Amino acid sequence: MPFLRNTWYAAGWADDLGRALMARTLLNERVLMYRLESGTPVAIGGVCPHRFAPLHMGKLVGDLVECPYHGLRFDSSGKCAFNPHEDGKVPARAQVRSYPLVERDGILWIWMGEAKNADPLSIVSYPAVTDPELGTVKGSMHLKAHFELIVDNLMDLSHVQFLHPTFGATENFSSSHQEVTIEGQTVVSTRWIRGGKGTPLYARNLPDPTASVDSWVVVSWDVPSVCHIDVGVTLPGKTKEEGLRAWPAHLVTPETEETSHYFYAHSRNFRVGDAEVDAQIVDFQRVAFGEQDRPVIEAIQQTIGNADFWSLRPAMFSVDTASVRARRVLQQLIAEENREISAATQHESRKTAAE
Amino acid sequence: MPFLRNTWYAAGWADDLGRALMARTLLNERVLMYRLESGTPVAIGGVCPHRFAPLHMGKLVGDLVECPYHGLRFDSSGKCAFNPHEDGKVPARAQVRSYPLVERDGILWIWMGEAKNADPLSIVSYPAVTDPELGTVKGSMHLKAHFELIVDNLMDLSHVQFLHPTFGATENFSSSHQEVTIEGQTVVSTRWIRGGKGTPLYARNLPDPTASVDSWVVVSWDVPSVCHIDVGVTLPGKTKEEGLRAWPAHLVTPETEETSHYFYAHSRNFRVGDAEVDAQIVDFQRVAFGEQDRPVIEAIQQTIGNADFWSLRPAMFSVDTASVRARRVLQQLIAEENREISAATQHESRKTAAE
Amino acid sequence: MPFLRNTWYAAGWADDLGRALMARTLLNERVLMYRLESGTPVAIGGVCPHRFAPLHMGKLVGDLVECPYHGLRFDSSGKCAFNPHEDGKVPARAQVRSYPLVERDGILWIWMGEAKNADPLSIVSYPAVTDPELGTVKGSMHLKAHFELIVDNLMDLSHVQFLHPTFGATENFSSSHQEVTIEGQTVVSTRWIRGGKGTPLYARNLPDPTASVDSWVVVSWDVPSVCHIDVGVTLPGKTKEEGLRAWPAHLVTPETEETSHYFYAHSRNFRVGDAEVDAQIVDFQRVAFGEQDRPVIEAIQQTIGNADFWSLRPAMFSVDTASVRARRVLQQLIAEENREISAATQHESRKTAAE
Repeated sequence: MPFLRNTWYAAGWADDLGRALMARTLLNERVLMYRLESGTPVAIGGVCPHRFAPLHMGKLVGDLVECPYHGLRFDSSGKCAFNPHEDGKVPARAQVRSYPLVERDGILWIWMGEAKNADPLSIVSYPAVTDPELGTVKGSMHLKAHFELIVDNLMDLSHVQFLHPTFGATENFSSSHQEVTIEGQTVVSTRWIRGGKGTPLYARNLPDPTASVDSWVVVSWDVPSVCHIDVGVTLPGKTKEEGLRAWPAHLVTPETEETSHYFYAHSRNFRVGDAEVDAQIVDFQRVAFGEQDRPVIEAIQQTIGNADFWSLRPAMFSVDTASVRARRVLQQLIAEENREISAATQHESRKTAAE
Repeated sequence: MPFLRNTWYAAGWADDLGRALMARTLLNERVLMYRLESGTPVAIGGVCPHRFAPLHMGKLVGDLVECPYHGLRFDSSGKCAFNPHEDGKVPARAQVRSYPLVERDGILWIWMGEAKNADPLSIVSYPAVTDPELGTVKGSMHLKAHFELIVDNLMDLSHVQFLHPTFGATENFSSSHQEVTIEGQTVVSTRWIRGGKGTPLYARNLPDPTASVDSWVVVSWDVPSVCHIDVGVTLPGKTKEEGLRAWPAHLVTPETEETSHYFYAHSRNFRVGDAEVDAQIVDFQRVAFGEQDRPVIEAIQQTIGNADFWSLRPAMFSVDTASVRARRVLQQLIAEENREISAATQHESRKTAAE
Repeated sequence: MPFLRNTWYAAGWADDLGRALMARTLLNERVLMYRLESGTPVAIGGVCPHRFAPLHMGKLVGDLVECPYHGLRFDSSGKCAFNPHEDGKVPARAQVRSYPLVERDGILWIWMGEAKNADPLSIVSYPAVTDPELGTVKGSMHLKAHFELIVDNLMDLSHVQFLHPTFGATENFSSSHQEVTIEGQTVVSTRWIRGGKGTPLYARNLPDPTASVDSWVVVSWDVPSVCHIDVGVTLPGKTKEEGLRAWPAHLVTPETEETSHYFYAHSRNFRVGDAEVDAQIVDFQRVAFGEQDRPVIEAIQQTIGNADFWSLRPAMFSVDTASVRARRVLQQLIAEENREISAATQHESRKTAAE
């Protein structure tokens, strides 16, 4: 199945991008990102159209990217703006793509489809990431797995108790009911676990870590593969606001059909600025994502290879509801996009034939 | 060429299998082996039918295998017997294969074809491996080579003098006559070298290591790719029984088209329980198989790639008789099996059409 | 595009070949080279026709190559001349190819096409390499890149100023005019840079390293992928002969479609026998070829993969003239060779049909 193109993908954390050239492959395309002298982040194609050298091995000269091989320079629109050799002429074909790139909520959002369709208003909002009232810890990981396998992991937290026993939910997590709703194109999975010990990650920071609490975790998936989570513990009868609460962001972007970029942040309302808790979160991300999720997800990718997921006829359980809904929303959008592309191509052909 | 399926393959040494989950890919299928609490060895499919996680990354809970990802549990028939989530319902499709697995002569024998055809009486007998009167040293090796290249190596010992000069036969080994016979589906290669110094591996343990001896080596190949050897030295005029004699077992099982499991044992009638001789055998296996045979066999695999062996039109010499006969017996059985599968499929289609 | 076969390729430096078996893959064929006891260098197929063992893992017995696996021996015509086993019979098919191999100018030249077409008079001459009046430093490198990407690098030296700033030409190199001529099948690119500081590699060895000089670099490409260079600096008004001058040889031979052997030599007329200058040249080759050219060329190969270069529609600049001409000369010869092979095959078919 092709990737959805006319949508915003997370291309990275905004504060990881500066004046150094940053190369990333996104949806099989080699993209080069950097900031102009004004600070504006931009993204252009990463391969020189002359002899196909990787532009990130070159350097910035003012706001122009200089190819490492023969010194051709490109501006942020992707046009070759300078040829240092002989007559200095530049053929029209000497141009790379440019991609709409928007910095919002500390995230770089890139539009991989047609630039004319790119509407920044359609970017999903992640206000917690940059909220100065919250304590945020960020990270990223490269996984050798199809991006939907990572989304599946996020949309079905019933795995927490098995893969992440030390961080995970209490015994009654499994038997709790997962309510799945769809709001527009957003799929939301909600769980409340009433009573019992809360998730250690939060409960350990309660005044009484052994207290019986109400726990919740709400995961929202948005097109194409970005999730935000609302998770926490509160004393029975109290509101979410009165409890220990966090808003993790999980942003997954395909690199290729078999590899992905995974960007995550964890924003909390308790012990903000406390280095000890920051370290707990970093440790949780390193172990839970890196040592527990990753080997299983990558092993699944190894097994699946490049087969279509549905062609493998997975056995379906009730816990799969949210992840399957997210897959179906995306699948339908991809089918629509390809019908439109196909129609546009036919229209072009007829116009050409009529001329 | 496909693998022969309705036959017994060696899946490993029985004493390597306990209550730890053991994953092996056999004939391109991912198999999970373990022992029940009763000690009975069992084999089921190694990939969870829910989200394709590798079951060997999970754990045994009593006699059930718990998937590492979402905690589904499978019994030794392959059926999902427990779903820890929500309503606990288990769809019929939540099932992996189970494979007939028999422990005999210290070997685990697995049937990769249809279970109803599995007849333990057809398993080739290797009594020497567990004979308490003999001294047995065992080992195993993973080779990046098609299993028939390893069988070729065993069925044409004319290579011994060139690849294994320090362990190998005397100069007159090459000029000795190899007699090849077929008994049923068993191919037997017999060599007697009358006089001269014996194979160092045995001769060094003679009262007089420099004595002139009669040496013999008889290699029997059985379907699909299991060999036993009868090898030794005896003083001229004496019987085999009076000499130093060994019964190596060499069991080769395809992992994929280009990789194999190779299990070997060496059972001898001399200096039983003598650690020094045990060490000699271990050393022989490490050097001869691991450092001498392996690089050549793996280089051949690299050259052949996935080409059909016969399509390469190998030059044929008289020493190839035994290995070629073994290849032909197997080839014919595979052709028959595929005719039967094809006929059964057509029969099914006609039945369905008639309904 | 297939490789041109009826032509001479550089197979290596003559003084790297002795009585040790040397295996090289050339144009996807596995070639074995060695010297006979007489010192004559020979090349035969590198894979035993019996069981496909790599012959270089065997050894020389007199002038015969003994296969490591079963001890078959091959002579320099490629014929199996000795079978050590049983009846000693050798089937006619037990033969590997033999390749015309000529030692000239310290270079081993191999003919990969039909032996009957091999004419040593057509070998390009590189007299500087073995000229005792010159100081020569040699080297070789294995690159993970199509051989034409390396030729492109040599035929368009406008990259020097960007990839090799410390070794490269002065600022006015880029603006200098590249004159491209074709003489027969030889493509020649000539540049003169009048005035300014010369290439550091040469200028540092002038009596006054800061003097204004005239610099030149003339690169000649010959079929299939061998270049010689005439490069140097001279004081204004002086001849080339009066300047510091070098004649580098760059010989590129395809290993596979995506990897190449690259042999280079640097012969100079100044400070001959001076170890310090030798070390400068060695350092230049290590850094400029190994650390500057190689990563970019290999990255380009990664990007191109096995796509046809022209199908990627590279943007063309005036600096590409010489490299594009060389590509076109070769392309035309390959097309002709394949028409001839195709015609010969049809002729054979008609003859056979008529019989």
